[in-house]
Amino acid sequence: MSDTGITVKKNQDFSEWYVQVVQKAELADYAPVKGCMIIRPDAYAVWEKIQEILNKKIKSTGVRNVYFPMFIPEAFLKKEAEHFAGFTPEVAWITQGGDTPLEERLAVRPTSETIMYDTFNKWVRSWRDLPIKINQWCNIVRWETKATKLFLRTREFLWQEGHTAHMTSEEAEAEVMYALGEYKDIIENYLAIPVLIGTKSDSEKFAGALYTTALESIMPDGKALQMGTSHNLGQHFAKVFDIKFIGEDKVDHYVWQTSWGITTRLIGAMVMVHGDDKGLIMPPKVAPIQVVIVPIPFKGAEPEVIVAKSKEIAEILRVNGFSVTLDDRDAYTPGWKFNQWELKGVPIRIELGPRDLKQGQVVMVRRDTGQKMPVKEAEISATLAKLLEEIQINLFNKAKAVLQEKTTPVENYEEFKSVICDKGGFVKAAWCGSADDEAKIKDETGATIRVRPFQVEEPTTNCVYCGQKAKEMVYFARSY
Amino acid sequence: MSDTGITVKKNQDFSEWYVQVVQKAELADYAPVKGCMIIRPDAYAVWEKIQEILNKKIKSTGVRNVYFPMFIPEAFLKKEAEHFAGFTPEVAWITQGGDTPLEERLAVRPTSETIMYDTFNKWVRSWRDLPIKINQWCNIVRWETKATKLFLRTREFLWQEGHTAHMTSEEAEAEVMYALGEYKDIIENYLAIPVLIGTKSDSEKFAGALYTTALESIMPDGKALQMGTSHNLGQHFAKVFDIKFIGEDKVDHYVWQTSWGITTRLIGAMVMVHGDDKGLIMPPKVAPIQVVIVPIPFKGAEPEVIVAKSKEIAEILRVNGFSVTLDDRDAYTPGWKFNQWELKGVPIRIELGPRDLKQGQVVMVRRDTGQKMPVKEAEISATLAKLLEEIQINLFNKAKAVLQEKTTPVENYEEFKSVICDKGGFVKAAWCGSADDEAKIKDETGATIRVRPFQVEEPTTNCVYCGQKAKEMVYFARSY
Repeated sequence: MSDTGITVKKNQDFSEWYVQVVQKAELADYAPVKGCMIIRPDAYAVWEKIQEILNKKIKSTGVRNVYFPMFIPEAFLKKEAEHFAGFTPEVAWITQGGDTPLEERLAVRPTSETIMYDTFNKWVRSWRDLPIKINQWCNIVRWETKATKLFLRTREFLWQEGHTAHMTSEEAEAEVMYALGEYKDIIENYLAIPVLIGTKSDSEKFAGALYTTALESIMPDGKALQMGTSHNLGQHFAKVFDIKFIGEDKVDHYVWQTSWGITTRLIGAMVMVHGDDKGLIMPPKVAPIQVVIVPIPFKGAEPEVIVAKSKEIAEILRVNGFSVTLDDRDAYTPGWKFNQWELKGVPIRIELGPRDLKQGQVVMVRRDTGQKMPVKEAEISATLAKLLEEIQINLFNKAKAVLQEKTTPVENYEEFKSVICDKGGFVKAAWCGSADDEAKIKDETGATIRVRPFQVEEPTTNCVYCGQKAKEMVYFARSY
Repeated sequence: MSDTGITVKKNQDFSEWYVQVVQKAELADYAPVKGCMIIRPDAYAVWEKIQEILNKKIKSTGVRNVYFPMFIPEAFLKKEAEHFAGFTPEVAWITQGGDTPLEERLAVRPTSETIMYDTFNKWVRSWRDLPIKINQWCNIVRWETKATKLFLRTREFLWQEGHTAHMTSEEAEAEVMYALGEYKDIIENYLAIPVLIGTKSDSEKFAGALYTTALESIMPDGKALQMGTSHNLGQHFAKVFDIKFIGEDKVDHYVWQTSWGITTRLIGAMVMVHGDDKGLIMPPKVAPIQVVIVPIPFKGAEPEVIVAKSKEIAEILRVNGFSVTLDDRDAYTPGWKFNQWELKGVPIRIELGPRDLKQGQVVMVRRDTGQKMPVKEAEISATLAKLLEEIQINLFNKAKAVLQEKTTPVENYEEFKSVICDKGGFVKAAWCGSADDEAKIKDETGATIRVRPFQVEEPTTNCVYCGQKAKEMVYFARSY
C-alpha cells in the first residue's frame, strides 16, 4: 500500500508533502464522508501514548475520567449567549431518531461545557463537594466549511476535555496554569515541538471564557498552529447554570471554573514539524515502533543464522523495554524495507548482514540524521537507549531553531506586513490593546494575535498598527 | 449527595433497587437528554479497567486500535439489505450542518461495519495485506424507543468493536472463537459473572452475519442479559463492498470477516448480579478502590496518632499495589463512612481504633459477607491479598449458583410457559429448528432463544412447541 515514496520535497510543496506523508506513512486517510478522517493504527498508537501520559499526570492530581452524552439540547447551548454565538455556525444537528422527527433538535457536542455544567448544578451543594475535577476523552464535531486538512481540520476529531469547579478564583487560576504546564511538557518533551505560551486576546478567547491561555507552535510553512488551550471560565457558566455552594461561611457562592483540551491535531503537528523528504520522523518517546531490525541475508551466507540472530536481538530489546519490530519478510528486499521504515519514521534501524554476524556487531542507522554506526552486540541496548534519547533531543532542538528563526521582531507596520506576507512565522510587535486594530490587522494581513506572553514585555515601540502608546509585545501570525 | 442509603430491598423491587444503587453509588445518572446517561468516575474506572485488560489481550495477537468516522452515509447502510433493515429503525440522523441542510443525511454510527469495510476495499489487494485486525473504542447511538435503563439500554453507549478480515473461512472462525473466549475470561474472571456461550438462532443473529456467537447471563430478576457478541460475517459484506485479494494462487478471492463487541452494559450487569440491600459490591479485580481505611478516633485517645498510623498503612498498601483510599474526613462519623463505602461496594474496609492501635492490629471487614476479623499489622498486605482473591471467587460462585438455580430443563410447553412466567431464568428445552415455532414462542411467552450450545446436546424430548422431532437442546429466556 505504501510501496511508493514521497514524490515532492517538503520545502517545495509543503501542503502536498504533508498529505502524502500522512497517507503513505499510513497515519490517516480521507473518509468516504466529506470532511472526516480515518485514524489508522500508527497514528492512533501515538494518541494512546498521549492518553497514557496525560491520564497519569492528571489522575495523580485527583482528576477522574467520565463520559457525558454527545447530544446537547439546543436550549443548553443557548444559555450562554457568547458560547452559543461562537459554536452554532459549526454545529451538526440531529433532527430525526428512527422514523420520528425530534421535538427539539440536538447538537452533536462541539464542546461539553453546557451539558456538563447543567449536571454540576446538581452535584454541588456545599464546599465539601468541591473541587470537582473531571475529564473525558471523546469525539467532537465541528461542521467546518473550509477545506479539510487531515488531523488539523476535520469535521470530527478526538480530544480530551478537562472540566473543573473550585471554591476560589485562585484555585481555578492555578488549575488553568497546571493544565497548560502539563500540555507544555507533553508537547515539548514527548512530541518534541517547542511552543510559545500565553493568553489569547479577547477576540481570540474561548466563547464564554474569562480568559484563554494557549500553546502555539510554528509549522515549517510559517503558519502558526494552536496546540492546546486552557480556559479560565470565571463564574460565567456558574451564573448561567446556577452552580452554587454553601461556603464554610454559610453563605452561597458561585463556583469558579476551568476547562482545557488537546486534540488529535497534535499528531498533524508532529508530522509537519519533524518529517523530511523521505517521510515521517517519529519522536522516540511516542513512536509506536522505536527500532526495526532488518536482517540482510546474502547469497552464499546462511540466511537462517542471520534471522535467528535477529530474533535473538529483537527479544533482548523487547525484554529491555524497547518497542521493536523484526522485519524478516521474504517478499521484500532490504532496500525496499529501508525505504518503508524510513517513510514510517521509525527512529532507529538495525541492520544485520553476514559480515556483521561474523564480527559480532550490528549496524545502527539514525532516522533523523542518516548516521550509520557499527555497534558491538553487547552494547546494543545501551547504545539504542542513548541514541533514542539523542534523537528526541535533536528533534526538539532542530524545531526550536526553526521557531527562533521564524520569530521576527518588527518595529512598524510596513515591516510587519512584509514579514507576514513573505517570510511568515511569528511576528513580535507592540500592541496598544485595541480590538479594533487587531481586527484591521487581521483583515489586511490575515494575521491574528497568537499569544500575549504571561510576563508582559515592555513595548519597544508604539503600537505597530495605530502608532499610539503600546501596552505590550505580542506574537502575531497567520495560522491554521 | 449519596447521604441516604438504598430504600428498597433487592428481592422486593429489583428495578427500583437497581436505579437507586446506580445513582446513589454514583456510577451513573440520567442525562438531561432523553434516553442518555452520564457515566460517572467510579463506573468509568471500571470501563477503563475493561479497556486495559482487553487491549492487552487483543494487541498481543496483532489487533491494532483505530478510529473511523461516526458519520455513515445512508447509501452505505443500504448496501447490505439485511443490515439496513436491522439498524435503520434505530438510527439517529444528522440532516443539518451549521445553517446548511445536508444533501445526503448521515447516520450516527449504530455499528461500523459499512464505513470500515468500504475502506477495507482500498486496503486489501493481495494476500500479503491479510489478515486485517483492527478495533475501536467509541460511542454508539441506537435510538431506542423503549424505556431507558442506565447502562443496559440508553440511546448512546460506549463499546469496542473489533473487525477482522482473513484469507480463509477457518481463520475467520478461529477469530470469532478467540474473541468470544477473551470476553468469557473478562466477564467470568474479572467481573465475576458466569455466562452461557453458544450461537444465536438465525432470527436473533447480527443483521448481516453468517452466524452470531454470544455470551448470555441471567440477572437476579430472572431476565437474561446479552453480555457480548462475536460474529462470523462470512463473505456477505466482502461481496457487497467488493473486498477481494489476489491469493498465492494468483486468483481473486473474497475475504472472510468477523466483528465482535462488548459494551458499557457490562457495568450494569455487574451491579445487578453482585449488589445487595446495602448497595454495590465491586469484584476486587475491577474495583476502582479495593480497600478503604477508616480511622476511628475515640474521645480520650490521641486521634492524630491513629490517623498517622492509618496513613502509614495506606502508604504500605499503595506500594504493595493495592488501590487504597484513606477516609480521614473530619466532617463525617465512622458509621456514616461505613455506610457510604458499603454503598459504593468497596470490597474491604479496614478499621483502626485506639484499642487496635494498642494491640498492633487492624480490623478487616469483608463487603460480601460482612465478616469482621482482627489482622496483625505485619500481616495486613498478605491477608488483604488473600481476602480480595476470596471475595472475587465468592462473588463468582454465588452468581454461578444463581445461574444454576435459574436454569430449568422442561419437557413440554405447559412446563415451559409456567417456568418462563413464574420462575423466570433460562429454560432448557428441545427445539426442532423452526423459526416459525421460535416466533410463536416469543409471541406467546416473550421468551427468545438466548443460546444454542456449541456442543449440540441430544434432545431429551420432541420439540417443546410443535412436538415434532427436535434437533437440539437450546436455552430460552425473557431478556433485557
